[in-house]
Amino acid sequence: MQTTEKKKLYINGEWVESESYTPLLSPYSREVLAEIPIATKQDVNWAIVAADEARRTMAQLPAHERSAILERVVSLLQQRADEAAKLVALEAAKPITTAKAEVARTIQTYKFAAEEAKRIHGETIPLDAAPGGENRIAFTVREPIGVIGAITPFNFPLNLVAHKLGPAIASGNTVVLKPASQTPLSAYFIAELFEQAGLPKGALNVVTGSGKTVGDQIVADTRINMVTFTGSPEVGISIRNKAGLKRVTLELGSNSAVIIDEHVDIDRIIPRCIVGAFSFQGQVCISLQRIYVHEKKYKEFVEKFVVAVKQLKVGDPLDPSTDVSALISEKDVERSLQWIEEAKQGGATVAIGGERQGNILLPTVILGAAPTMKVSCQEVFAPIVLINQVSSIDEAIELVNDSRYGLQAGVYTNNVHVAWEAAEKLHVGGVLINDIPTFRVDHMPYGGVKESGFGREGIRYAIEEMTELKLIIFNRNR
Amino acid sequence: MQTTEKKKLYINGEWVESESYTPLLSPYSREVLAEIPIATKQDVNWAIVAADEARRTMAQLPAHERSAILERVVSLLQQRADEAAKLVALEAAKPITTAKAEVARTIQTYKFAAEEAKRIHGETIPLDAAPGGENRIAFTVREPIGVIGAITPFNFPLNLVAHKLGPAIASGNTVVLKPASQTPLSAYFIAELFEQAGLPKGALNVVTGSGKTVGDQIVADTRINMVTFTGSPEVGISIRNKAGLKRVTLELGSNSAVIIDEHVDIDRIIPRCIVGAFSFQGQVCISLQRIYVHEKKYKEFVEKFVVAVKQLKVGDPLDPSTDVSALISEKDVERSLQWIEEAKQGGATVAIGGERQGNILLPTVILGAAPTMKVSCQEVFAPIVLINQVSSIDEAIELVNDSRYGLQAGVYTNNVHVAWEAAEKLHVGGVLINDIPTFRVDHMPYGGVKESGFGREGIRYAIEEMTELKLIIFNRNR
Amino acid sequence: MQTTEKKKLYINGEWVESESYTPLLSPYSREVLAEIPIATKQDVNWAIVAADEARRTMAQLPAHERSAILERVVSLLQQRADEAAKLVALEAAKPITTAKAEVARTIQTYKFAAEEAKRIHGETIPLDAAPGGENRIAFTVREPIGVIGAITPFNFPLNLVAHKLGPAIASGNTVVLKPASQTPLSAYFIAELFEQAGLPKGALNVVTGSGKTVGDQIVADTRINMVTFTGSPEVGISIRNKAGLKRVTLELGSNSAVIIDEHVDIDRIIPRCIVGAFSFQGQVCISLQRIYVHEKKYKEFVEKFVVAVKQLKVGDPLDPSTDVSALISEKDVERSLQWIEEAKQGGATVAIGGERQGNILLPTVILGAAPTMKVSCQEVFAPIVLINQVSSIDEAIELVNDSRYGLQAGVYTNNVHVAWEAAEKLHVGGVLINDIPTFRVDHMPYGGVKESGFGREGIRYAIEEMTELKLIIFNRNR
Amino acid sequence: MQTTEKKKLYINGEWVESESYTPLLSPYSREVLAEIPIATKQDVNWAIVAADEARRTMAQLPAHERSAILERVVSLLQQRADEAAKLVALEAAKPITTAKAEVARTIQTYKFAAEEAKRIHGETIPLDAAPGGENRIAFTVREPIGVIGAITPFNFPLNLVAHKLGPAIASGNTVVLKPASQTPLSAYFIAELFEQAGLPKGALNVVTGSGKTVGDQIVADTRINMVTFTGSPEVGISIRNKAGLKRVTLELGSNSAVIIDEHVDIDRIIPRCIVGAFSFQGQVCISLQRIYVHEKKYKEFVEKFVVAVKQLKVGDPLDPSTDVSALISEKDVERSLQWIEEAKQGGATVAIGGERQGNILLPTVILGAAPTMKVSCQEVFAPIVLINQVSSIDEAIELVNDSRYGLQAGVYTNNVHVAWEAAEKLHVGGVLINDIPTFRVDHMPYGGVKESGFGREGIRYAIEEMTELKLIIFNRNR
Repeated sequence: MQTTEKKKLYINGEWVESESYTPLLSPYSREVLAEIPIATKQDVNWAIVAADEARRTMAQLPAHERSAILERVVSLLQQRADEAAKLVALEAAKPITTAKAEVARTIQTYKFAAEEAKRIHGETIPLDAAPGGENRIAFTVREPIGVIGAITPFNFPLNLVAHKLGPAIASGNTVVLKPASQTPLSAYFIAELFEQAGLPKGALNVVTGSGKTVGDQIVADTRINMVTFTGSPEVGISIRNKAGLKRVTLELGSNSAVIIDEHVDIDRIIPRCIVGAFSFQGQVCISLQRIYVHEKKYKEFVEKFVVAVKQLKVGDPLDPSTDVSALISEKDVERSLQWIEEAKQGGATVAIGGERQGNILLPTVILGAAPTMKVSCQEVFAPIVLINQVSSIDEAIELVNDSRYGLQAGVYTNNVHVAWEAAEKLHVGGVLINDIPTFRVDHMPYGGVKESGFGREGIRYAIEEMTELKLIIFNRNR
Repeated sequence: MQTTEKKKLYINGEWVESESYTPLLSPYSREVLAEIPIATKQDVNWAIVAADEARRTMAQLPAHERSAILERVVSLLQQRADEAAKLVALEAAKPITTAKAEVARTIQTYKFAAEEAKRIHGETIPLDAAPGGENRIAFTVREPIGVIGAITPFNFPLNLVAHKLGPAIASGNTVVLKPASQTPLSAYFIAELFEQAGLPKGALNVVTGSGKTVGDQIVADTRINMVTFTGSPEVGISIRNKAGLKRVTLELGSNSAVIIDEHVDIDRIIPRCIVGAFSFQGQVCISLQRIYVHEKKYKEFVEKFVVAVKQLKVGDPLDPSTDVSALISEKDVERSLQWIEEAKQGGATVAIGGERQGNILLPTVILGAAPTMKVSCQEVFAPIVLINQVSSIDEAIELVNDSRYGLQAGVYTNNVHVAWEAAEKLHVGGVLINDIPTFRVDHMPYGGVKESGFGREGIRYAIEEMTELKLIIFNRNR
Repeated sequence: MQTTEKKKLYINGEWVESESYTPLLSPYSREVLAEIPIATKQDVNWAIVAADEARRTMAQLPAHERSAILERVVSLLQQRADEAAKLVALEAAKPITTAKAEVARTIQTYKFAAEEAKRIHGETIPLDAAPGGENRIAFTVREPIGVIGAITPFNFPLNLVAHKLGPAIASGNTVVLKPASQTPLSAYFIAELFEQAGLPKGALNVVTGSGKTVGDQIVADTRINMVTFTGSPEVGISIRNKAGLKRVTLELGSNSAVIIDEHVDIDRIIPRCIVGAFSFQGQVCISLQRIYVHEKKYKEFVEKFVVAVKQLKVGDPLDPSTDVSALISEKDVERSLQWIEEAKQGGATVAIGGERQGNILLPTVILGAAPTMKVSCQEVFAPIVLINQVSSIDEAIELVNDSRYGLQAGVYTNNVHVAWEAAEKLHVGGVLINDIPTFRVDHMPYGGVKESGFGREGIRYAIEEMTELKLIIFNRNR
Repeated sequence: MQTTEKKKLYINGEWVESESYTPLLSPYSREVLAEIPIATKQDVNWAIVAADEARRTMAQLPAHERSAILERVVSLLQQRADEAAKLVALEAAKPITTAKAEVARTIQTYKFAAEEAKRIHGETIPLDAAPGGENRIAFTVREPIGVIGAITPFNFPLNLVAHKLGPAIASGNTVVLKPASQTPLSAYFIAELFEQAGLPKGALNVVTGSGKTVGDQIVADTRINMVTFTGSPEVGISIRNKAGLKRVTLELGSNSAVIIDEHVDIDRIIPRCIVGAFSFQGQVCISLQRIYVHEKKYKEFVEKFVVAVKQLKVGDPLDPSTDVSALISEKDVERSLQWIEEAKQGGATVAIGGERQGNILLPTVILGAAPTMKVSCQEVFAPIVLINQVSSIDEAIELVNDSRYGLQAGVYTNNVHVAWEAAEKLHVGGVLINDIPTFRVDHMPYGGVKESGFGREGIRYAIEEMTELKLIIFNRNR
């Protein structure tokens, strides 16, 4: 890839130029990676028209053909996995090892989509269960909802796009995709794969530009039947309030936590907690932000954790040994430092980190942060983790639940009663016993409660949201 | 029941007086049926507080106890069925025979709810289907969503309330119910049954007042986790736009149609079409408003249909022989007459009806109405039905689909190929082959596409909307 | 009930006399309870003819009517619960308190059946998932299998009959029931309730007589489409081998075990283990027969368990304070004593019990029994329980699995890892963590592996076995 | 492939010689295709030991690995599709075009298996639906049943093997496969693919020899947990009667029929009926054997059908233009001719065919055959089809149902009421509206009623039969 390459919009199966362009900079090196088209209102409209017109074609593709298209995407991505990982490393400053793991997961996501395309089905309804329903055959079908507007974030530029495109194509819908401004390259890359895989023209359209312009237009247009968004709660809620009767799926943020019980073997869990807290600089929806350790193990945990943090290598995302690289933007580095400062002012201690190196925020551990501090109650989306001690698991559960978010939470414990109690009481979308909250495989139902979102992803669950239930009844009474 | 009875609000298991009252008039006789409390902001707040505080109690009731409460409501309603029917006949001017049928269906609805309360369950997820998911046990549970704000219409004052309360209680939620202004009596009646049935205090609260005040407050309050509304599209959309991240279910209107193919035996289907068009004065969400008859049968159909209309008896809702009584309000009579007038001006013919007798609009048949006329493209919600001829079923399907609504549609045909084609092409929530669109049993999935709504009712489907999916994972890797 | 009452066969909705009779004696008092008809070959044939002819009627009953019949049985049984319990106490020598509990569960069983009758449904199959399957609509239906021969045991004369009749009637089948020779009264009693509930003639037929004659005839007759049997493995296997292509469900025996881990609070679990071991004299399929206690708790457990056994009251089944009464037959008392003797000869110790009082075998605890002894490897079906110590849970799991049976097993542990390991490794139909194996509610899937049986009961699961899957495909290609 | 090749048994991942061999002759040319090992009792025992010992390995493979093995088999088979088709053409005399279609379907079958391997899951059970079930978490898991003995027929030597191996491996079982004596080559071929695909040693074992020796040994061995058999009813029933408590799935024969209603366009359906009747010489379980035509269309149908039969080309299976080749054995040619003779003697007419050319039986159409003739009431498994006239569809349905078989049946009709009536009344495993009975895609539930079999295949359904349901309950009461 040349850094001066001029990318094109992908509309109705064509690669088209735009009126204006904006340079895409590497978050790490600040070099220009490409020139990205800024879609005009007309471009976006054209994309929507194309998607609208491709509806019938997509709806009539047999399941095995939709599946075959997705299987071909899987193959193509397997072949070009290194290229894909490098793109992500460059545009998102994601350490290359982590980027490769994302590619592997993206392959899984499309694979699950290819398979679920063949499993969309309904059920029969025994209408004679009610008086008046005799002699009728009834069953449900799931029809594609139509045109889906997909708005995706920078942090998993391949896999979170796959969680929109995979189920949408699997269920016979068409898509207008607006990727995050910082990560357009991987979106255009995947469009190329779909093109090669034989996706009908218009079924996928990719338009880049600002969220304000492109995003709002997608949300407002009445030809769009559903909006699926992953990003911040603020934007998510505003989308919901503008969406009218459109269906809306929102995967928003969190300040995920793990609880560590008194008898747990600390050595065994440290490496996993490190991964949870610092993977991709903490820029993960279910990044581990808060750790609540039973007082009997608190000191040991902090000591060992800090030792482990010291071994993390910061640097160039393309270097395979790098653990932590640049944040997605300078602005985020500054915001993070301010939040750390606020915590310090409020009496919290920075056990390690708390400084920047260029756009890299050094892995940071904060002790004794109060629940009201931004580093605790907001989503940090940076390599910052809090460790606090608790005197009981009940106390820890209350602290975890005292949040406007509720995506996932983890609990390390050997006690079966504690485990079930936590599973019941933690008010989140997913509870992980003996694991960090930062666990996701791509077929599991994923999504949060409270301000963490609305609806569930995970291919089969997303397909349910992307299809309309139709009831068909044959009356046999004559 | 005395006409001067002063009703009380039902909050936190108590019957409480309000600051002010408004008389409830019979739509048919205009006599005062009762004095209805107008809930203040404080009253509504109190109801929400009560519901919020009862959450934990309800969530912890075992399924068999939630079921038992609903079974007791079933028993009590069976015992007091005549009283219930009379209430509905009086406050809604629903002909008593139809009102009795509503009571019978309401019993079914609560019965299905009692049974589904015991069938809420999740599934296990084979996480090892993805690399990285080995040695984990995962399963889903469905937790009650919390406090549900239910806003219900006048046309099925018992059964459409049951479609909110039934699944809400079945799934362990609590409810703040605002019934339609014209039909509060049946709502308070059902609250009484729940009280006798042993529902925990605060689990059901009934507050009456204007939609503007009470309804808006329910929609805006952050302690309400879900709003379930049945009513007009305008109000429905405005609720959606104000609801933030609250879950919202909307059952809105329609201008439902039936298509009649050329070989169909007209005599056999006339009685059913009459029921579809004029039952409860056409004030039914899936009332038959548009009839498209193949040209080979058009003349015969119109003649026989008009003959049948002539036999309908209009009058007092309490008279068992009455087929058609007063519309719900004077305003609706006037609106209906204006729409008929507009149709006539535009060249349509009134084959029969088109006049009022007091608040009764005589059953009205309009021929040759254009698709753009209000009687065709809006929801009439009055005893008005259009009959139009078509030269093919394809044409008819296009006419049916040319609507901003899409709730249910019927097709009478003997031809198996036509039947499946219609089932596929009709863009509605439910297609009825060889039946009118005005068919519903209370366990089937019910709801529309386009502006007919959002989400599905039918107990099991409503329960799904009223519960939150939680994923629980046990990691066995050590 | 008079002891000299002469019972009648119930065939085709008629109560008919037989050629010969046999006296039914109380296992406890040896008094004659009734004269029981011995069905001839002709009687049984007549019952089969009746069931065969009623097939069509039953298959065409709408679901809500099948459900209503079962709901009426529920009501009638609630009204006559005391009478039912007394019958069971008399004919089976089941302590009256336990008999009452059985009646309560039987009510649940029929209630679940009434509800599941309305939930039998199929699913649609997306045939276009395979090339060549385009443009086809496909779905499954579940049709009643036809005539079911039900052969039931003495130990739950009401509830194990309910587990055959409930699902059979719910799914539109007809039944020829042969109850255990010792417990015909409750079978005729339930037939009476079905008759009052309006079950169509011929849908249920009850014929008493020897297993050899009546049972074999049922198994051999080609008009019987399915045999459902609960009883001994020997009889079960012989039924299977004679059944040809008939469907067969077998619920056979077990020598169920519980494992007790080292940190468990012994005081808390003793009462439950006592119930598991001695309820209805241990004559329960999932009776607790083997207890494996971690060596650190073995001594404490034995001491406290024996103390608790001493408090059990033996005596008349009609006395509400009786815990343990007579075994079902003298023969069983003798067999039990022989097995105990064999154990003693082999070096095991009888900690308490090991003697008879009339037909009552005193509650017996045996320590140090070897796995090869009959009291360990056979199903004792008597108030005998073994307690053995183990040095690890793994050892205990191996001992539990070293059995030709595999119905249910329990594990008491606080450790979450141990719990999951046991759940995985125990080779049984049901694993109970922190409970005895003697747990069953009537809607759960129930049944064993190895010689414990074949197929699952629990209403919904039994219905699946009692229905035939039919696939219906509409080809729309022209 | 050389005709003198000596094949080896495949046991425990090794290719092993046997004591003795038997030549495999081409049914068409009688040339020797290979020398096939005759497994001794020791060989079979060794295969069972290997399968038994591989159980644990297979049970512990994560789903994604089981799936990956099957995906690799899919790839390998795609690469070697021509070779596979040729093997089938040679050993079974299946016309090469048909053999290629079988390979394509076999690929689908393994593909579905690969996908279903990742979808085996259970569900949670709300135990608190019953009193006494409070505070318990319960869910089901599906465990592999263990060692599966698979006995397969000659007619789809690849795909019917795939319907055993696919689901067995997908669900973590191990297999001892005994292919049909006439078609061992394709079985060894597929074993080679599994070996290359990395299936653990012992998970698949292929042993050839006589049904009497090898088959009986498999059925009798207690280490075999399930027998899955496709073949004749006689053998099937005898297997069932010897199987003890083993699970048994039987896919047996049929004399499948199609019904043709009066308004059907005959020209359109003739080609499909020809395929149904003569594909692979009628040696297909759901081959079209009986055609019942409404009297108004009978003459037209017969004339056009005979014209079409005349165009069928008989000859060498390797010739791409061949439609009909040799029957599987000389014995079958003779049997077929005898049955035709019996029909003629009884008054039936042979409209065309009825003669042999070498081992080819010419495509034969018989008119006016009585229901009691062997060609009608037995499974012909030869290119013979009956055409009979009926005066009503009801009459036709009765004739179809008057059979000891019930696999699939087809009905051609334009009338929606007739279609549903037939779907209800035809007593078969699968009803095809507007299609021949000879339709199958490999994921649909497939299997018959009456003597057509027991259990259902179609990957997901077969997996259900090949797994054991285990219930796991965590008691949270303390």
